[in-house]
Amino acid sequence: MTNSLGKIFTVTVFGESHGRCVGAVVDGCPAGLSLAEADIQPELDQRRAVDSAASTPRLEEDRVEILSGVFNGITTGAPLTMVVWNKNVSSADYDKNRFLPRPGHADYTAFVKYGGFNDYRGGGMFSGRLTAAFVMAGAVAKKLLGQLGIEVLAHTVEIGGISAKSLDYNEIKKNAGQNPLKCSDIDAAANMMRLIEQVKKEGDSVGGMIEGVALNVPAGLGEPLFDTLDGELAKALLAIPAVKGVEFGNGFAAARRRGSENNDPFTVKAGRIVTTTNNAGGILGGISNGMPVVVRVAVKPTPSIAREQNTVDLQNMQDAPITVQGRHDTCIVPRAVPVVEAMMAVTICDFARRAGLISGVIK
Amino acid sequence: MTNSLGKIFTVTVFGESHGRCVGAVVDGCPAGLSLAEADIQPELDQRRAVDSAASTPRLEEDRVEILSGVFNGITTGAPLTMVVWNKNVSSADYDKNRFLPRPGHADYTAFVKYGGFNDYRGGGMFSGRLTAAFVMAGAVAKKLLGQLGIEVLAHTVEIGGISAKSLDYNEIKKNAGQNPLKCSDIDAAANMMRLIEQVKKEGDSVGGMIEGVALNVPAGLGEPLFDTLDGELAKALLAIPAVKGVEFGNGFAAARRRGSENNDPFTVKAGRIVTTTNNAGGILGGISNGMPVVVRVAVKPTPSIAREQNTVDLQNMQDAPITVQGRHDTCIVPRAVPVVEAMMAVTICDFARRAGLISGVIK
Amino acid sequence: MTNSLGKIFTVTVFGESHGRCVGAVVDGCPAGLSLAEADIQPELDQRRAVDSAASTPRLEEDRVEILSGVFNGITTGAPLTMVVWNKNVSSADYDKNRFLPRPGHADYTAFVKYGGFNDYRGGGMFSGRLTAAFVMAGAVAKKLLGQLGIEVLAHTVEIGGISAKSLDYNEIKKNAGQNPLKCSDIDAAANMMRLIEQVKKEGDSVGGMIEGVALNVPAGLGEPLFDTLDGELAKALLAIPAVKGVEFGNGFAAARRRGSENNDPFTVKAGRIVTTTNNAGGILGGISNGMPVVVRVAVKPTPSIAREQNTVDLQNMQDAPITVQGRHDTCIVPRAVPVVEAMMAVTICDFARRAGLISGVIK
Amino acid sequence: MTNSLGKIFTVTVFGESHGRCVGAVVDGCPAGLSLAEADIQPELDQRRAVDSAASTPRLEEDRVEILSGVFNGITTGAPLTMVVWNKNVSSADYDKNRFLPRPGHADYTAFVKYGGFNDYRGGGMFSGRLTAAFVMAGAVAKKLLGQLGIEVLAHTVEIGGISAKSLDYNEIKKNAGQNPLKCSDIDAAANMMRLIEQVKKEGDSVGGMIEGVALNVPAGLGEPLFDTLDGELAKALLAIPAVKGVEFGNGFAAARRRGSENNDPFTVKAGRIVTTTNNAGGILGGISNGMPVVVRVAVKPTPSIAREQNTVDLQNMQDAPITVQGRHDTCIVPRAVPVVEAMMAVTICDFARRAGLISGVIK
Repeated sequence: MTNSLGKIFTVTVFGESHGRCVGAVVDGCPAGLSLAEADIQPELDQRRAVDSAASTPRLEEDRVEILSGVFNGITTGAPLTMVVWNKNVSSADYDKNRFLPRPGHADYTAFVKYGGFNDYRGGGMFSGRLTAAFVMAGAVAKKLLGQLGIEVLAHTVEIGGISAKSLDYNEIKKNAGQNPLKCSDIDAAANMMRLIEQVKKEGDSVGGMIEGVALNVPAGLGEPLFDTLDGELAKALLAIPAVKGVEFGNGFAAARRRGSENNDPFTVKAGRIVTTTNNAGGILGGISNGMPVVVRVAVKPTPSIAREQNTVDLQNMQDAPITVQGRHDTCIVPRAVPVVEAMMAVTICDFARRAGLISGVIK
Repeated sequence: MTNSLGKIFTVTVFGESHGRCVGAVVDGCPAGLSLAEADIQPELDQRRAVDSAASTPRLEEDRVEILSGVFNGITTGAPLTMVVWNKNVSSADYDKNRFLPRPGHADYTAFVKYGGFNDYRGGGMFSGRLTAAFVMAGAVAKKLLGQLGIEVLAHTVEIGGISAKSLDYNEIKKNAGQNPLKCSDIDAAANMMRLIEQVKKEGDSVGGMIEGVALNVPAGLGEPLFDTLDGELAKALLAIPAVKGVEFGNGFAAARRRGSENNDPFTVKAGRIVTTTNNAGGILGGISNGMPVVVRVAVKPTPSIAREQNTVDLQNMQDAPITVQGRHDTCIVPRAVPVVEAMMAVTICDFARRAGLISGVIK
Repeated sequence: MTNSLGKIFTVTVFGESHGRCVGAVVDGCPAGLSLAEADIQPELDQRRAVDSAASTPRLEEDRVEILSGVFNGITTGAPLTMVVWNKNVSSADYDKNRFLPRPGHADYTAFVKYGGFNDYRGGGMFSGRLTAAFVMAGAVAKKLLGQLGIEVLAHTVEIGGISAKSLDYNEIKKNAGQNPLKCSDIDAAANMMRLIEQVKKEGDSVGGMIEGVALNVPAGLGEPLFDTLDGELAKALLAIPAVKGVEFGNGFAAARRRGSENNDPFTVKAGRIVTTTNNAGGILGGISNGMPVVVRVAVKPTPSIAREQNTVDLQNMQDAPITVQGRHDTCIVPRAVPVVEAMMAVTICDFARRAGLISGVIK
Repeated sequence: MTNSLGKIFTVTVFGESHGRCVGAVVDGCPAGLSLAEADIQPELDQRRAVDSAASTPRLEEDRVEILSGVFNGITTGAPLTMVVWNKNVSSADYDKNRFLPRPGHADYTAFVKYGGFNDYRGGGMFSGRLTAAFVMAGAVAKKLLGQLGIEVLAHTVEIGGISAKSLDYNEIKKNAGQNPLKCSDIDAAANMMRLIEQVKKEGDSVGGMIEGVALNVPAGLGEPLFDTLDGELAKALLAIPAVKGVEFGNGFAAARRRGSENNDPFTVKAGRIVTTTNNAGGILGGISNGMPVVVRVAVKPTPSIAREQNTVDLQNMQDAPITVQGRHDTCIVPRAVPVVEAMMAVTICDFARRAGLISGVIK
């Protein structure tokens, strides 16, 4: 299945930007988990457009609705289905540009792959709106991981070349939620916001970087040689529209270091084996080593910009200009932050299921 | 299956560094492909240690042997099994350090995951030696892709911070094979080699970056939302030991660009839709767009270094020094180049199978 | 995923008997198929209770609703989601017997597997009602197969020991739809109906046998050694509640024949290779041979009967009597007939996708 | 993967009848299991031809060889590879009949599916010889299940219409191994043997039925709605060449019973919930209920018979006679008995892995 992720804790996603709904079926969620819409809604709210230049002014009041898998407020072990219903969808803009693929979007590739039958309105199934389904599934995964003490958090570490300074995880947790850019360095966040406002005026967009961290992941998660923890995280994160790169620990910086600098020495601390540094980002040989799992993703600038761009008219195979209508996020990085959390949570939850740390019934 | 990759063209890998053999079963290879050991051996030879400071002086004369799936020199459609038999394996070094996990290696995580029953000799199944299996499978995939005109090539673009200059694909093809570092910029290669020799004297190691390119991939390959072309490539590439990051097209650099710079405008050229730039690395919405598929991976410095390092004695849970014995690659980047090609070929071949471009029988 | 069936044309089922809905997500449905609720509704109507002693008097007016994957009346290649909403559900009966597992039902095994958290109302996810989801997916598969000229039909061949006489496929098609028991032998059907009425009066139930036939299946479908056509059909058919056995062609009767009787001789007929008999039921070595695919399933008598039965009180682990309340089918065989068709269609459609006979886009 | 079975405990099979070898890769075998060739060889010997009319006089001294996954006599958690090397293979017979598909065999369907590139010698990958790989994997599964107290046993219950009388499991265990037909009813076995000898003289063959029983399977194994215990068992058993039907518990006989007869009443016995009868064959709703899992398979008569048969010459598309050369089993039922055990063991072992009863490391 191409729209499913995970082997035991499996998420199947459906829906379109301008269709009836967006939804997720979670198969393999253990029975016995207390779960209500109220557990999921706050996560959904995190990915909602915020009232600022950073994000789209469209109002999407996504209300999650659980369709199956919960009985008397507790998961039953049956497939768990959640949807948000679409509203406020004006498709007229899209009909006009139906045969003009927007640069940087999936319009052209979807057209080719699905023979022109794809729902082109707002990107259809390729819309960032589908990440609402990721987030709903992620909310369930986060709740399950919480029972193991595993915590997943993501935050903005760079926007338009402005970097946040490094902070410890407690500060990140405290600060990141307090500003609309989900950046834990408050000063950098202010600069980022100024940049975004300026770029917006220019009819342009900016990208950035998000760091995801999973704390208290026990050593031993991951299934080599191919179903590695890093491999599956990368695959899940690259499903987020606009993500173009993924690195673990030092990542690309490791390529410029010496082995003597980059190796993380082991030591015993409080009776537990740890490494004194975490250049590996918590993963060795595709398996968690007990240190924080650290991943960073590169988010490209929003492809929808206000300026006229060059494209092709697919009907007559000629060059044609396009001006993308509608209101779009100047920078989608902050809205992608909860999605990064969700994809990490879903992936780690699947590995915890595979390792038997989470079994079929919550006791 | 955790040691299998691909959905229709599926590669299952087995073996250990110091066991009997290393092998691969390819399930889903079409019937009717002319195939002999001679098609695979040259690829295997590419990953062999070269006579230079860059690589390990161990002699491994890996001779591929086809055990099943070929009859009268043609694939039958049955599972295709290939092995290389191990020889020249001295395990004594490893026994001594059995309970001293080497920093930067999978020793500790394998110990935890497999309860200490893992074959610790030379990293066992986590050894870089397993990439021989990747390369054998990749050789088959490359031959299949060749029938579609798809070509996969990889080359070293950076070692120890020294970057190769950008060259066109014809020059890359011509040059990369001509120096032991598989770097197409001959001058940079000379500098890299000097650096490697110096680092070797220091008892240290260096990492680098490899770029992989797939040419003539038709638009439409990739299975969103989750089995994306980029997601599956990333997963496959992260199975190569020492790879810590993967980026597509501009990758992390895209995070610092404006949308107006980063979007690739479409245009019609010779009756075909192309983009005038290839910042996307040939992938939009997880689907190939007909431009070259471009991926770069970060290779960390070889974790085995000659210097004493700090680790932990797993038997008595105390800090302990370790000096990794044996002869190791100062820089494994060049040996990983054919492996990058192999993983790209295997992944793209699977998508070509899924899309029906390669069917069950070669006509 | 445990609630999914198929590898490329994949059906994921969700919902419960007394929950909000029952639904199916079809992943891998090609783009370009004309599809509306009106294509699916008639199939759903086939499994509806009929106005006779044979079936339950409950009224279920299941109206299919397409939630995703169709745009302008044509499939888009995105996941296709269909639901029927539940109504007319009275749960009170079930609450009373919550801890008294009904003999012959999944109540006890579900209780054990899901730690008592399963939705016990009407069997929850184990209810025969879930077959509405099978039928919706089957309707899509049948439409796709129709484009290849493949036709799937099922009919009742035995109820309570009364066998239908053998008829040719044209008569089966013509007759089976004309009586509520879906039996093509009109005389036998009358006898079956009399038996059912008598058994109903006795507060008991009867089982029977259904034959499924797929016509015009080309030779070459099936993926040995394990994903065989017969193996996958059997797995799919055993997902239908009450099915306890599956046989192909002569099936169990073949066990009593000589090889000289049972082998189907090949011959050339109108330039095409056929067999002069079809003892193999159209399958050799797990692969279709071009003859009709013939399968028969054994349907056990409805476990819900009006008589008091012996069971156990799960709360105090003591023997206890149970009288199953509600109105139930005396014989569910006729209602299972369209479900057999659906499961055959879904399975064959998946193989047609795997073989490339149905590609990702309908031309 | 089409040649793989199981989701967590996964068996991949390779090899051909007249190729180099037949082998299996077991992925997901837990680390820490004591395992040597001596654990596997006795199972292999069970499927060897016996010195009697019942079986083929060919001598196959299959010696298992472990190629990976075991270190110091203990499984490591890495893929476990086992092979038997082929010898005593004369292919000349097959070359002569290359284009004459044998009735009842997979020759024709393999020819169609693999475009004539299939290895036709002895059926290639479709040969019963491949069941040696099943049995090797089954031996590992049986050893793992033994640690849970689960025992799998199969025995011949019918040959050529001669039925064995019903015996209890202790007698079956004691008797079945003591005669070459693996039938626990000694008198019936003698009659069966006489029939086989007579049929052999007639140049014909006979089929039969095998019953498989799994004892001490705990309640709760099986993953509905589709990955059911019965569904997966049926799929695995239908991979055995010549199996044409599968039934559970009463199976097809249930179709002729009343609900009041067929339902198994629950009762408490020694503090444990059991059923007073086992018409369900230990499975309700696709999940084990704690009673013995009972399955019966129909084995068709050996398609290779000494008499001339009608077939088609694939080269010139004309009818042609064929006389199958070589020495073949008059009745393959006894040789299939250990294969039924193996397939049951592999399937149940996978479910035990999925349920967490067998984890990644044996303690």
